Amino acid sequence: MHKPLGPNRSQEFTRPRGDSHSLNPEPLKLFKNKEISERVLSTLHQQSILSVNDISREQLIELVKLAACLESLEISREHPLDGKLVITAFFEASTRTRVSFESAVLRLDGKIISIPEGSTTGVKKGESIEDIGEMFNAYGDLVIMRHTETDALERIQKGLRLPVINAGNGTGEHPTQALADWYALIKWCPDLIDPEVKQSLNVGILGTPGSMRAVKSFLLLALQFKEKINSVTFISEMADPLGKDIKEAITNAGIDFSVSNDMQDHLPNLDVIYMNSIVCVGENYTAMDSSYKLNSDSPLKKDAVILHPLARLDELDRSLDDTPHNLYFSQAHGAVFLRQALLICILGRLYTMPREIPLVP
Amino acid sequence: MHKPLGPNRSQEFTRPRGDSHSLNPEPLKLFKNKEISERVLSTLHQQSILSVNDISREQLIELVKLAACLESLEISREHPLDGKLVITAFFEASTRTRVSFESAVLRLDGKIISIPEGSTTGVKKGESIEDIGEMFNAYGDLVIMRHTETDALERIQKGLRLPVINAGNGTGEHPTQALADWYALIKWCPDLIDPEVKQSLNVGILGTPGSMRAVKSFLLLALQFKEKINSVTFISEMADPLGKDIKEAITNAGIDFSVSNDMQDHLPNLDVIYMNSIVCVGENYTAMDSSYKLNSDSPLKKDAVILHPLARLDELDRSLDDTPHNLYFSQAHGAVFLRQALLICILGRLYTMPREIPLVP
Amino acid sequence: MHKPLGPNRSQEFTRPRGDSHSLNPEPLKLFKNKEISERVLSTLHQQSILSVNDISREQLIELVKLAACLESLEISREHPLDGKLVITAFFEASTRTRVSFESAVLRLDGKIISIPEGSTTGVKKGESIEDIGEMFNAYGDLVIMRHTETDALERIQKGLRLPVINAGNGTGEHPTQALADWYALIKWCPDLIDPEVKQSLNVGILGTPGSMRAVKSFLLLALQFKEKINSVTFISEMADPLGKDIKEAITNAGIDFSVSNDMQDHLPNLDVIYMNSIVCVGENYTAMDSSYKLNSDSPLKKDAVILHPLARLDELDRSLDDTPHNLYFSQAHGAVFLRQALLICILGRLYTMPREIPLVP
Repeated sequence: MHKPLGPNRSQEFTRPRGDSHSLNPEPLKLFKNKEISERVLSTLHQQSILSVNDISREQLIELVKLAACLESLEISREHPLDGKLVITAFFEASTRTRVSFESAVLRLDGKIISIPEGSTTGVKKGESIEDIGEMFNAYGDLVIMRHTETDALERIQKGLRLPVINAGNGTGEHPTQALADWYALIKWCPDLIDPEVKQSLNVGILGTPGSMRAVKSFLLLALQFKEKINSVTFISEMADPLGKDIKEAITNAGIDFSVSNDMQDHLPNLDVIYMNSIVCVGENYTAMDSSYKLNSDSPLKKDAVILHPLARLDELDRSLDDTPHNLYFSQAHGAVFLRQALLICILGRLYTMPREIPLVP
Repeated sequence: MHKPLGPNRSQEFTRPRGDSHSLNPEPLKLFKNKEISERVLSTLHQQSILSVNDISREQLIELVKLAACLESLEISREHPLDGKLVITAFFEASTRTRVSFESAVLRLDGKIISIPEGSTTGVKKGESIEDIGEMFNAYGDLVIMRHTETDALERIQKGLRLPVINAGNGTGEHPTQALADWYALIKWCPDLIDPEVKQSLNVGILGTPGSMRAVKSFLLLALQFKEKINSVTFISEMADPLGKDIKEAITNAGIDFSVSNDMQDHLPNLDVIYMNSIVCVGENYTAMDSSYKLNSDSPLKKDAVILHPLARLDELDRSLDDTPHNLYFSQAHGAVFLRQALLICILGRLYTMPREIPLVP
Repeated sequence: MHKPLGPNRSQEFTRPRGDSHSLNPEPLKLFKNKEISERVLSTLHQQSILSVNDISREQLIELVKLAACLESLEISREHPLDGKLVITAFFEASTRTRVSFESAVLRLDGKIISIPEGSTTGVKKGESIEDIGEMFNAYGDLVIMRHTETDALERIQKGLRLPVINAGNGTGEHPTQALADWYALIKWCPDLIDPEVKQSLNVGILGTPGSMRAVKSFLLLALQFKEKINSVTFISEMADPLGKDIKEAITNAGIDFSVSNDMQDHLPNLDVIYMNSIVCVGENYTAMDSSYKLNSDSPLKKDAVILHPLARLDELDRSLDDTPHNLYFSQAHGAVFLRQALLICILGRLYTMPREIPLVP
């Protein structure tokens, strides 16, 4: 059975809470299997998430269903994270990701210790990241960390006994961004998680996964949906945008992929376009692949959707904001709820969920 | 009927909560009309406050009455802002205003996401302020924003669907500072809001409204009390301290005003003196009009009061702190309660007010 | 009666809450006198703590007993600091101390206004520290302050009417660090507070108390336990590491002390070693006495324990972390609970303590 792609369906959705940019995630509409497995979600208890590889497809699906419930209910009154203290340690500055996590925690009545400029403090004294990990043990229940260095997470875990969520590590990964990406895609096209429905999406990546952690995590998570993907096209200014690891992973998954530097050629064929242009190099940001620009005149397939981790420069024109191609706002909005679902599981607070959420043992 | 000015009356006030610098705002003493109109205050629900012109005289009076109630009661136990999340986004650094707002929110049991150094984060990546507005939609219920650029508020509203309160925009306005100023003045002289009592205050402005947003907002709000004002004297180092817009507004209001650069000449005639000297120019602060200095030996009218938005340099000498001329500490202290009153209205939480507050439909 | 030193006893302790680095502070085991005096602790109500001299030995002992109770119970559900607002004002950057205090407050359900980079804000406008004190009166219930200038606390108290806790002032003191140090030592060797048991500890100080506020506060607090101390040996690169005040204090206490620059000579004789190497000089950090390095091959007495306020550079090798000499992790972990005990007393919330805590009038 082959059903039409998401955009047609998503337009039926009523817009919730007066918010024109979020797809209505009504869980009873979205999923055939309306139950959420507590057994699967419980396996996340006290787990660290350093890479998308720390999340199985099975876990992802249940997380997405829980996030959809959280997005359609107002559960802050339940105080699910009451008494829990989350440390947000950003050794690389970020507003968007930090605020997304802090909003997720605070709306569940957890508490936050915020270290927005980690690089200016203990580190200034020459303190090792291992010792910072040891320090955090005494002060919180979970650490959310971003760092300019790729190996910082491994190093902090030498001293840290709390679970840690990677919020971006150098040229490494940004796994919760990828979870939010796929949450948006699954809301757009719920059949992605229905094994009985065939899909053959043509996915385009505008950017350089080898240098862009958000793109890399998106791609690695895409491998979990390989049977729904017809092809992946990488459009990049670099001759080899993938790097050895990613090329190996995608080859092993048996996905048909190609590399090109000509966007115009491929655009009319793509169903899902993931783009990014800002790369963090050490302490600073720079733009890559910024010659690939999309606007409302671009030759996009009628049903195509665009994902972008934001912030954007002018590679993604505001003329697209009010078109059905815009999935990036839904992606940003949904991220809060996906992160809430993850936090509830890791911090062992599934038992606080209200009865409206159809958890089954 | 002509009654003596405030200072004589205010000295009767008992000092509340052991705090020697705040006038006792006991609402039952202050106001003839002891009822607070819920109808008027409800019109502020979900409203943005960019300028003092977004507040009518009628709204201001009811806000002042509500603030006075909040200042004399301990209402934090009522948790009026429970479940509400306020984003304080300071793209121009500020301790005083940020902390005043955060204290107002936290004492009402609201939650805060604090972005104390907005300029170092998303903006560093080149993100547009419109996109930052779109981002905030997902993360909070209200935004309090300060920015070095005057047009930043208009721009953020292109993407933002939450109410926003201007906490200072370039050379624009600082409306909640002006509301706090007039809250202090009305506590000092409650007849200001009594249409039956005549007043004819001589107001002096030491500073340059055209370059100082706090002064400008104070002045524009003064126009709502024009029938109580006899004259306004601008004392400034600049030949034209007003600028076209302000001159037009004050002329249209029919207020008698004059401009001078000689302070000593005018001091003995002034009832209310508003002064400021710190101006934000781009990323930095500089002092203007700092040749106009007041101390306890200045030839002030016996009953005169001094307002100052603080922080001060040496234009306002500490020798005045313990004199009855000092209204600036009351002004700073009351600001928390005025801001609380405003937040309760904008966030639709009037219904949480305890019975001691005489709200009427 | 002469009993064996702490390490032997501490190894009997079961490790609480899966945390391998904190000694179990089970209060019923630790103290002969199991009651905690509410009368003594109440004398801390609304008190400022600028120096260890603001804490008597009697107060310290009751604080330690209360901290031990807090460490072994989960009392966050009691919300002891509900409705209290604490301002953390760090005019000298610090992660470790700020986060330790903020964790202490948040876990007791108090609220925090965090000023992590005080030096970049009001001060930038040229605001005096006296005025900042006046400002804080309106915004919180207690101020925790760190400052690069030694006299900053005295100056802020000219305007501030709230209690203030010194979290480090220039080359002055760091009293809550010292309280945490002695909390760790008393957990390690409870006989320190038992007047009937004789102890004669040989204490070594690796560092320069005259320039290191944490070392200075540790030492001044040690004087309260002078009858338990046999000797103090200062090992420093400086010819006169003490300075006049400290030399006078230790001489008056009648403690036998000596100064040396040869560590190897003295190590085999020491029971308690306090070390530090990072000194804050103005806005920056530098290392002193860093030629004195300890590792697991150092000729330490079998029972000796090492204290270090952290952060560390390479003067304290990670090879010691898993040895019984490591008291520095217990010291860091316990600091949260000692600070909680102090906050509960200063903010007048002893009445919220649950019945499991054996408070007596």
